[in-house]
Amino acid sequence: MSIGVCYFPEHWPGERWERDVEQMAEAGFEHVRMGEFAWDRLEPERGRFEFGWLDEILDLLAEHDLTAVLCTPTATPPKWLVDERPGILQETADGTVRGFGGRRHYCFNSPAYREETERVVSELADRYAGDPRVAGWQIDNEFGCHDTVRCYCDDCAAAFRDWLRERHDDVDALNEAWGTAFWSQSYPSFGSVDPPCVATADHHPSRLLAYYRFASDSVLDYNRLQVALLRDADDDWFFTHNFMGNFGDLDARAVAEDLDFASWDTYPTGGFARGGDASLRTGAFDTVGMNHDLYRGMSDERFWVTELQSGEKDYPADSPQPAEGAMRLWAHQAVAHGAGAALYFRWRRCRSGQEQYLAGLRKHHGGPDRAYGDARETAADLADLDPGPVDAPVALLHDYEDAWALDIQPRSSSFDYWAHARTYYSALRRRGLDVDVVGTDADLDGYGAVVAPTLCLADAALADRLRRYAERGGSLLVTMRSGVKDEYDKLRNDPAPGPLAGTVGATLDQRESFPRDEDGLDLTYRGESFAYRTWAEWLDVDGADVVGEYAAGVGEGRAAITRNRVGDGTVLYSGVWPGAELADALVADVLDAGGVECADRLPRDVRCSTRGDAVWVLNFALDPVTVRADGDAEWLVGDEEVPPAGCSVVRAPLSELAFER
Amino acid sequence: MSIGVCYFPEHWPGERWERDVEQMAEAGFEHVRMGEFAWDRLEPERGRFEFGWLDEILDLLAEHDLTAVLCTPTATPPKWLVDERPGILQETADGTVRGFGGRRHYCFNSPAYREETERVVSELADRYAGDPRVAGWQIDNEFGCHDTVRCYCDDCAAAFRDWLRERHDDVDALNEAWGTAFWSQSYPSFGSVDPPCVATADHHPSRLLAYYRFASDSVLDYNRLQVALLRDADDDWFFTHNFMGNFGDLDARAVAEDLDFASWDTYPTGGFARGGDASLRTGAFDTVGMNHDLYRGMSDERFWVTELQSGEKDYPADSPQPAEGAMRLWAHQAVAHGAGAALYFRWRRCRSGQEQYLAGLRKHHGGPDRAYGDARETAADLADLDPGPVDAPVALLHDYEDAWALDIQPRSSSFDYWAHARTYYSALRRRGLDVDVVGTDADLDGYGAVVAPTLCLADAALADRLRRYAERGGSLLVTMRSGVKDEYDKLRNDPAPGPLAGTVGATLDQRESFPRDEDGLDLTYRGESFAYRTWAEWLDVDGADVVGEYAAGVGEGRAAITRNRVGDGTVLYSGVWPGAELADALVADVLDAGGVECADRLPRDVRCSTRGDAVWVLNFALDPVTVRADGDAEWLVGDEEVPPAGCSVVRAPLSELAFER
Amino acid sequence: MSIGVCYFPEHWPGERWERDVEQMAEAGFEHVRMGEFAWDRLEPERGRFEFGWLDEILDLLAEHDLTAVLCTPTATPPKWLVDERPGILQETADGTVRGFGGRRHYCFNSPAYREETERVVSELADRYAGDPRVAGWQIDNEFGCHDTVRCYCDDCAAAFRDWLRERHDDVDALNEAWGTAFWSQSYPSFGSVDPPCVATADHHPSRLLAYYRFASDSVLDYNRLQVALLRDADDDWFFTHNFMGNFGDLDARAVAEDLDFASWDTYPTGGFARGGDASLRTGAFDTVGMNHDLYRGMSDERFWVTELQSGEKDYPADSPQPAEGAMRLWAHQAVAHGAGAALYFRWRRCRSGQEQYLAGLRKHHGGPDRAYGDARETAADLADLDPGPVDAPVALLHDYEDAWALDIQPRSSSFDYWAHARTYYSALRRRGLDVDVVGTDADLDGYGAVVAPTLCLADAALADRLRRYAERGGSLLVTMRSGVKDEYDKLRNDPAPGPLAGTVGATLDQRESFPRDEDGLDLTYRGESFAYRTWAEWLDVDGADVVGEYAAGVGEGRAAITRNRVGDGTVLYSGVWPGAELADALVADVLDAGGVECADRLPRDVRCSTRGDAVWVLNFALDPVTVRADGDAEWLVGDEEVPPAGCSVVRAPLSELAFER
Repeated sequence: MSIGVCYFPEHWPGERWERDVEQMAEAGFEHVRMGEFAWDRLEPERGRFEFGWLDEILDLLAEHDLTAVLCTPTATPPKWLVDERPGILQETADGTVRGFGGRRHYCFNSPAYREETERVVSELADRYAGDPRVAGWQIDNEFGCHDTVRCYCDDCAAAFRDWLRERHDDVDALNEAWGTAFWSQSYPSFGSVDPPCVATADHHPSRLLAYYRFASDSVLDYNRLQVALLRDADDDWFFTHNFMGNFGDLDARAVAEDLDFASWDTYPTGGFARGGDASLRTGAFDTVGMNHDLYRGMSDERFWVTELQSGEKDYPADSPQPAEGAMRLWAHQAVAHGAGAALYFRWRRCRSGQEQYLAGLRKHHGGPDRAYGDARETAADLADLDPGPVDAPVALLHDYEDAWALDIQPRSSSFDYWAHARTYYSALRRRGLDVDVVGTDADLDGYGAVVAPTLCLADAALADRLRRYAERGGSLLVTMRSGVKDEYDKLRNDPAPGPLAGTVGATLDQRESFPRDEDGLDLTYRGESFAYRTWAEWLDVDGADVVGEYAAGVGEGRAAITRNRVGDGTVLYSGVWPGAELADALVADVLDAGGVECADRLPRDVRCSTRGDAVWVLNFALDPVTVRADGDAEWLVGDEEVPPAGCSVVRAPLSELAFER
Repeated sequence: MSIGVCYFPEHWPGERWERDVEQMAEAGFEHVRMGEFAWDRLEPERGRFEFGWLDEILDLLAEHDLTAVLCTPTATPPKWLVDERPGILQETADGTVRGFGGRRHYCFNSPAYREETERVVSELADRYAGDPRVAGWQIDNEFGCHDTVRCYCDDCAAAFRDWLRERHDDVDALNEAWGTAFWSQSYPSFGSVDPPCVATADHHPSRLLAYYRFASDSVLDYNRLQVALLRDADDDWFFTHNFMGNFGDLDARAVAEDLDFASWDTYPTGGFARGGDASLRTGAFDTVGMNHDLYRGMSDERFWVTELQSGEKDYPADSPQPAEGAMRLWAHQAVAHGAGAALYFRWRRCRSGQEQYLAGLRKHHGGPDRAYGDARETAADLADLDPGPVDAPVALLHDYEDAWALDIQPRSSSFDYWAHARTYYSALRRRGLDVDVVGTDADLDGYGAVVAPTLCLADAALADRLRRYAERGGSLLVTMRSGVKDEYDKLRNDPAPGPLAGTVGATLDQRESFPRDEDGLDLTYRGESFAYRTWAEWLDVDGADVVGEYAAGVGEGRAAITRNRVGDGTVLYSGVWPGAELADALVADVLDAGGVECADRLPRDVRCSTRGDAVWVLNFALDPVTVRADGDAEWLVGDEEVPPAGCSVVRAPLSELAFER
Repeated sequence: MSIGVCYFPEHWPGERWERDVEQMAEAGFEHVRMGEFAWDRLEPERGRFEFGWLDEILDLLAEHDLTAVLCTPTATPPKWLVDERPGILQETADGTVRGFGGRRHYCFNSPAYREETERVVSELADRYAGDPRVAGWQIDNEFGCHDTVRCYCDDCAAAFRDWLRERHDDVDALNEAWGTAFWSQSYPSFGSVDPPCVATADHHPSRLLAYYRFASDSVLDYNRLQVALLRDADDDWFFTHNFMGNFGDLDARAVAEDLDFASWDTYPTGGFARGGDASLRTGAFDTVGMNHDLYRGMSDERFWVTELQSGEKDYPADSPQPAEGAMRLWAHQAVAHGAGAALYFRWRRCRSGQEQYLAGLRKHHGGPDRAYGDARETAADLADLDPGPVDAPVALLHDYEDAWALDIQPRSSSFDYWAHARTYYSALRRRGLDVDVVGTDADLDGYGAVVAPTLCLADAALADRLRRYAERGGSLLVTMRSGVKDEYDKLRNDPAPGPLAGTVGATLDQRESFPRDEDGLDLTYRGESFAYRTWAEWLDVDGADVVGEYAAGVGEGRAAITRNRVGDGTVLYSGVWPGAELADALVADVLDAGGVECADRLPRDVRCSTRGDAVWVLNFALDPVTVRADGDAEWLVGDEEVPPAGCSVVRAPLSELAFER
């Protein structure tokens, strides 16, 4: 684990560079990321490349034993290029061209832009192949930021048709697969299928799902093109991409297969604040934690935080200052979740452009900013730590295509794929458990329990794996909205949960949905009363036991939660989006059934993570917490008194820790 | 009265058809509606028509004594047609083309589309003329759905200019009629008048009103084109169209003159829920009832419910399940309001496309869905009923052009033409009265009382008819915002209510308006205090008596409600939008003045309707209600105990029923 | 001071004109404004000018000793012109053309429209040069209304590039000035800089600020073009323009330099109601007052109210009636703030077009409307008054460019430049003080105190003037968000408040921002607890004393408000947006330090203004207020009992008045 920083030498006069690099080294950093928006500095006009400035910096870094992570600069094609080839620009669904002035203003399917990309990436590859100063590459920057995965231009139309031709034998097969008999929507040819631009009514869900898949695949292809060029040039380099948190337009898991590991940009109070578990001062810690676990799950346990918030954030509109120490707490949280490196964004606040209100470790006028001390301290904390791997006893299944299908037809004003999954994630975390957030094709052996929210598109193969997992003694939680649709987003012929029905031992009779603030949504689970929200399914049991029943409403007395024995294992099915208390009860039962040891619920806003024999106690509250450990416990970082927004690391089993506030 | 169903054989393999039809017959249905979105099945490519599948179904229906209602498929021009003639597509006011992928994506004024329409409708007419299997036709489907009445394309521009040429002698006359001297808006020629596309500020109201009329007339012409072709082929067919509830972009009353009767699509919890009188579980019953009465008023007492909600609705976003029995209650409500038939939408839930979350009588995997039992039971209830006609003692006047004018200049954030009229409608219904909702040109003889809300564009002829109605002993209620504008949406030269001033005996001095949640809007009516909302007029009396005065605000002490003697009759004028209590008081006085007998207010969420000597007791509440009737009462359906969401029919005068909850 | 009216003879038949003019004269009016939207009457087709009707009116006015103020009609190019030269239309940032149908539908940079403007203005100038019936001109009408300052068409693109060429030596200088190194945004040439149309992300703030300046300058040039043509023709005419209240897209101060004086259109309950200090019935009086003082500050003490609300307003959607007498109160408020004339809008309500729900002095059917009596009475009140000038002891600095920069990067959902400045303005007014709202280049000598809110772009020259003002004994209040940016909207190299740091004696360490409804934002100022909102800065003092500290939050104990001695003067710095109580405390201290005498806080909703030796007591409350004055006081208008929405004028020092409610 190492600490690093994002650096933009192109924003500053050359005379500042040496002092900057010296200070980075003094702070104990290892990595410096550079170049992701520097195309106009690297190639000020077509064909005239200027590497001198970058070489100068690379030399300085090497002199100070800092390794460079370079980025391809393709997120920001410069104006001279846009003027020459305006066809590279994106178009919105109503045909508006998205012009120059932000970033990510190119279409992934533009042949012209792929040509330009090859040109600039090849130039960089040639220049730095074998260069010991460069450890690896970040491809482009935050694919999909600013709603840019899905473009609607003519290049996309052509590419979409080709994509469809590869996936369907002929257009009749497509019509059959999508069910275009509805509303007379059959296509006479592949050539007649357009991107889903502005129409009179909602689009056909099968067309949308195909377009979402196609758009995600377009990014995948584009990333692959870059990785291939660079890897060809130097196979010792590592390759990553800085994904975003809670970002669903892109199947990051699929893209990550072409990378050495996934990374993500972590802004705990930026964008996530005031969302569910958010503390305004310490951030939305379970949202952050779930993203750590998601990206770790794509990368064989290695992932990076490519950007870590350094104080003042410029998004959303209102930005209270983080708590004292929060920037160290966030780095520790990343480590605790298995991050291989965390790079603070950014070395120094930039004086110009869109992000002037986004802090760096250093103020724009030179002195240290709030996070600088945190960053130094974190680097020191970690210098001698060599924690073991994260070994999570529980898996939470996650699938981008499920999220797309449910986003296309949410059927409730308050449904959200991510927030629903996070309800279970938070309940698990509150019990002190580490969680692997993995794809539905993950190997489930070794997990004591598996939580599988909203497997909307679950197919027979997945159903089969889940059944076998249970049969061999696993404890499985399946939820509402599973097994509903086939791969083209049509309703399955069988009642939901479709291929999972036998395993669940129940089928869906009816569903209903509610606004977020609906009152009186109560059910009885194992004799106790609990609240639920947003969604209710009335179940017909076929083998399972009813363990939860609706306590009110038209569905009063109908089965809401069932429990089934499958081989040596247990399958719980929740037909509702549980409130936090019900989620805790469900999770406790699932863990119990799976023989997974778990703690009492941790104090509010405290989270624990275990790596090897070390436990991180992360206190996201603004009041202190005291940890009681027995005499053998060794305090690796901090001690029993964990201050507000503070963190301690102790060598002791979590089960032997007690907490007091 | 008969029960039927909407059926989409084209969604299902042919082998299912026979069983489907058998089950429809067994359920006691009489009508089956088909084909409204089947163009691509009827004509898979230009000129190749395929009627075989439809004939097969028609044969099956005939074998089972079910009559078919066919639909022209013009709501969904197929992709091959759109690709050939893209000019048929609609355009929004900012010039965006509304592409393929929803439905109703054609312009009513497209000469190309009229040509295509003639072609396909003629083919159907030729095919089925004289065919005893086909009872009648629904023209197209839900004109105006998805905001499609008003298009802004070049074809519309040309047609609009022609429409203006027919209505004004020359452009000077148009300029004079509209009052284009304001803001230098005079037109040099008819050819210079464009559709009201995006501009810097609000458009001239006269231009907008002309465009709204023109757009509505365009639909009327388009419907007439289709009816003429079909009627020419077979004059024994009936013709209808499935209008929508609370839909105002189109003058349905004018369109219905070319039809044999009007129909409408009834989704009591879809779209209307949470609006005023809505129960989430039983629907917005007065909104539904008012639409029943509106469409009955267009059709000489005969109207159909072409689509009736069958359980789960996919719109709006949140859809609680209807109460147990609600689907039967809704059918009975339609019957009670005079419907000739009610067709459940739809036979079976569709597995593909946009409406997967919209229920049918049968689940998509085959078994019965919640409404199936309700539908069977309703068919059985009605088998032996032969109720007399609806004979409403009260008329409520309704006018689409008034709604347009008030929509163009609402002058209050909380004004809504339909909701205002419904305030009076609900008060009348709560008193157990049947109401005819009729156009302003209706014959008013025979009505004991007439309620005439917001006659914004009232002209001398209407004023004359209303005065004569009153003079002959009628009891008339006129409201705020009447007689304000001339036919071109200019302020009348005279003070409001303009031509109605003499009849009302008062004129408008000032008006003011308020947001929905404004506190302290109180007035005194006949010595009691009442709340009003949204709108207040200060009246100068000229012959009338002041019966209501403002109790607070700048207008304190000014006349708010007046009462005038006109010949043998009485004219009440309300200068405010009354709260429910004031609406009841006003209505009670109007009924009293007109000698209309009425009950005490019915219990909450109970409504009664009378056909001949039979009274329907419709209980929209989720608790039961008990009806006390004397010994002579004959219970035709149900009995004294009306369950939640239930219904009884009794042969007894309403005045002899008493209710207990 | 005189009263007048806006008149639209073109809306009415000629036979009404004489009676109208007679009635205006009888009412005691002096000025009549006409013609601002009459282009299609003045030139019904190209080249055919019709002045006869206007001459007829001018003769009538002259006969009745009324002077005419004519307007150039360029706000509404007629349809024949738009059809001939459609390129004059504006375009939005997404490329949509803003068509005919509202007003202000022309682009300021259209060469075609400048040509047309020259043509029509020259014609008017030629016609009326030397005509004694015409006293002066209003140029166009409400520049910028309906978001029309900023257009994005090709003409604007070309003009913008020329504008940039004039301001930067070469494109490298532009790139350096803007800091286009951020996100690879460098421009290869001036020709490659486009208007900031739709892009993927927010635009570069320097590009936006340049565009805002350019757009404002375009209006300035366009106004100058018209003034020059007219002044050339007759140098005795006066020239003004009717600006709008709280309108910031245009630098009105700069435009006003080409005029003889500024005017503005005053609608106290229209648009401003429910905003902070608004009474629904008497209007947003401090918003109105601040605009009076703003426009007075542009005009060497002379300014006009070109339009004054006459009762019912058609914007916003809901319009309660003004209080009885409010229309007189508003005219007196204008006078009290130094207005040279107030013209009621409008003589008679128009029967057609967009503004039918906007009142006039006369109803559309002829009789007097609510404001008519108020207008007459006001004219009589003022007939013999000859008040001295406004002599404000306090200046409030105001700068359009600061507003633009802060609007481009507000960094809080609840920040608003105008509302923040008004917090201080209201506090000063509540203390009975007259305030000059002046530009940052104003001469500050003679002001006892200067309040300088959010001098975001403050440069060395301004800092120098403020320092010198303080050194000479002035009392200065500087606030949060000052001295942050350089002239191109880049962060200054130095910590904020940049060039003001020495004067303030403190610098910015951190900032944070909050939504409007955030709880718990408290600080301690001089030992008392106060609430603040929206924004908090943590200050490092360097010479100043800490007089306010945060009482809670992450910044607890950090300096929030500082006080510095500079020469003989005092500089207070507020790092927060104060609540009303804190604003009062700050203002009281600033006044005290500056030796400015001030009263106790006036009663709620009462304001006083002083001209010479006369004090206006303006009662915006709906209950009366009693004024106690000593025996020498002379009541020029009204007396000690000031009724609700009433006004008295007394010759007595404000300090000798006492108020009771």
